[in-house]
Amino acid sequence: MSENLKFAVIGGGSWATAIAKMLCVNLSEIAWYMRNDAAIEHIQKYKHNPNYLSSVEFDTQKLKLTNNINEAIEYADYVIFAIPSAFLDAELKHLTVSLADKIIFSAIKGIVPETSLIVGEHFHIQYDIPYYNIGVITGPCHAEEVALERLSYLTIACGDPDKASIVAKTLSGNYIKAKISDDIIGTEYAAMLKNIYAIAAGIAHGLGYGDNFQSVMMSNGIREMKKFIRKVHKMKRNINDSAYLGDLLVTGYSVFSRNRMFGNMIGKGYTVKSAMMEMSMVAEGYYATKSAYKLNQGYGAKTPIIDAVYAILYEGKDAKSVFKKLTESLD
Amino acid sequence: MSENLKFAVIGGGSWATAIAKMLCVNLSEIAWYMRNDAAIEHIQKYKHNPNYLSSVEFDTQKLKLTNNINEAIEYADYVIFAIPSAFLDAELKHLTVSLADKIIFSAIKGIVPETSLIVGEHFHIQYDIPYYNIGVITGPCHAEEVALERLSYLTIACGDPDKASIVAKTLSGNYIKAKISDDIIGTEYAAMLKNIYAIAAGIAHGLGYGDNFQSVMMSNGIREMKKFIRKVHKMKRNINDSAYLGDLLVTGYSVFSRNRMFGNMIGKGYTVKSAMMEMSMVAEGYYATKSAYKLNQGYGAKTPIIDAVYAILYEGKDAKSVFKKLTESLD
Repeated sequence: MSENLKFAVIGGGSWATAIAKMLCVNLSEIAWYMRNDAAIEHIQKYKHNPNYLSSVEFDTQKLKLTNNINEAIEYADYVIFAIPSAFLDAELKHLTVSLADKIIFSAIKGIVPETSLIVGEHFHIQYDIPYYNIGVITGPCHAEEVALERLSYLTIACGDPDKASIVAKTLSGNYIKAKISDDIIGTEYAAMLKNIYAIAAGIAHGLGYGDNFQSVMMSNGIREMKKFIRKVHKMKRNINDSAYLGDLLVTGYSVFSRNRMFGNMIGKGYTVKSAMMEMSMVAEGYYATKSAYKLNQGYGAKTPIIDAVYAILYEGKDAKSVFKKLTESLD
Repeated sequence: MSENLKFAVIGGGSWATAIAKMLCVNLSEIAWYMRNDAAIEHIQKYKHNPNYLSSVEFDTQKLKLTNNINEAIEYADYVIFAIPSAFLDAELKHLTVSLADKIIFSAIKGIVPETSLIVGEHFHIQYDIPYYNIGVITGPCHAEEVALERLSYLTIACGDPDKASIVAKTLSGNYIKAKISDDIIGTEYAAMLKNIYAIAAGIAHGLGYGDNFQSVMMSNGIREMKKFIRKVHKMKRNINDSAYLGDLLVTGYSVFSRNRMFGNMIGKGYTVKSAMMEMSMVAEGYYATKSAYKLNQGYGAKTPIIDAVYAILYEGKDAKSVFKKLTESLD
């Protein structure tokens, strides 16, 4: 691995921490930006992120930790954003360095609420970054299992296949296999939409539906996702590839999923507000639901599951009766 | 629902018991054959099957229970077979009544070991039953959740859509939604193949692979299943429909799955023999693996997962090293 590759990770959460861990296998140095000064100090002193994946030990000699996003971006050629989509716009407002000539990879699974754009589109439209300098890092991959060094597969999508390959190689290792793709739009929409289906799966579970129904939900979910993504960006893709179906399944079935947990609380009778207060992490799917629903007003894809989750989260409809009606639309 | 419909259920296991329960919602009488005299007596006396889904209470006035398979078949127009595929051939050898003019539905998810045929093909080839009198009842549906009356979706496939509709209506109820299909070959192969992927999922779990890998396994599994079924019977089908993908998921992810449990024991180091002895139920996927592997010698579909499971179960290969190699073929 070339020592000249300069990577920065933007974010201090669990996925950012997992990516920093992967990068450190292959690089002798990375820049790592996070807002939280106390976390930076803790990592420098104790080699562990105190808040996320705290079991992971870092070789701190490799880490250029900073609470200044400009410093991290200035350092790097490849900048990997791994912060909740809801905070992206605010973080980017602090930029004084230019993003021109930077290669931007998004490891964010969501939509930017301020612009209703997926992250790649946001950088392209708002910051004039050409698509050959924009990429996506997608799963199926729970950060928690990266911490445990359990075998995980990533898909790295970029308009420029050479850059996708570089990022794939830099993330790959003993327990990480990364393949490349040219579907930057589709993979990112899939990563965003799957969170909505995970919320739906959680609601169903909370309402008392069982495994039989869950499998019907996922089977309908992937068909719905395929229709939606085809409206957004038509190209040849196999929706059953790991980056789409695999990512849906790992989120919809896993106990680690914040979105599923959020949905579960809604299904059990929590209000949206109290479920959000109860959770200390942001459920990306909450924002994704609104954006996907609004976007689809224009596309007109048949998306009964997204519509149902929207009705519950944003129109105050009763989860039990919305799902009772939803079950009639599924098959 | 017409009172003139005469149904017989063949089998005393959990899936047979679930089907008997569903039928009793809509019919005033059914014939129910099982080998076990003690179970018949118990049901007649206590209204519960003592061995399977023992929480389900039957209205015994509706049940014509018999230990004579000929009696049950003679009674019925529609005969639903729900016994392990390994016992089918032996049971059919007891037949003295003719199956001509009977409408045969298979609720068996497996292959008949003696002929290496799926059940529909077995009846067609060995007993000259025309395909318009052959049907398949498939999930995604765990019998255990039918007992709990949790919403479940069935797919009823038959060469004759009218007969599919009749069976669908007769099984439908409050917690059962049944749709029809004309893909009798594909749905039955899917039901058979999914058990192999469930064994693979179990082996992976037993070996310590996590949720990230499990989702990659399922994503590769459905693609492999699609290729295999297309070789067997090419027709327009959406492999992501509930009868294919849903059935794969409910089996591959559920703790109820015998096949997954069997695989899990193999992954944890049990020999095939001791894993089979440890389980009191037959893991259909064990026979399916051999048949699918052998069949595919002719078809030549790329099926690395089936090949891996075959190598472990039938060639005595070490699960850990076979899976290590398998991970290289998945993406």
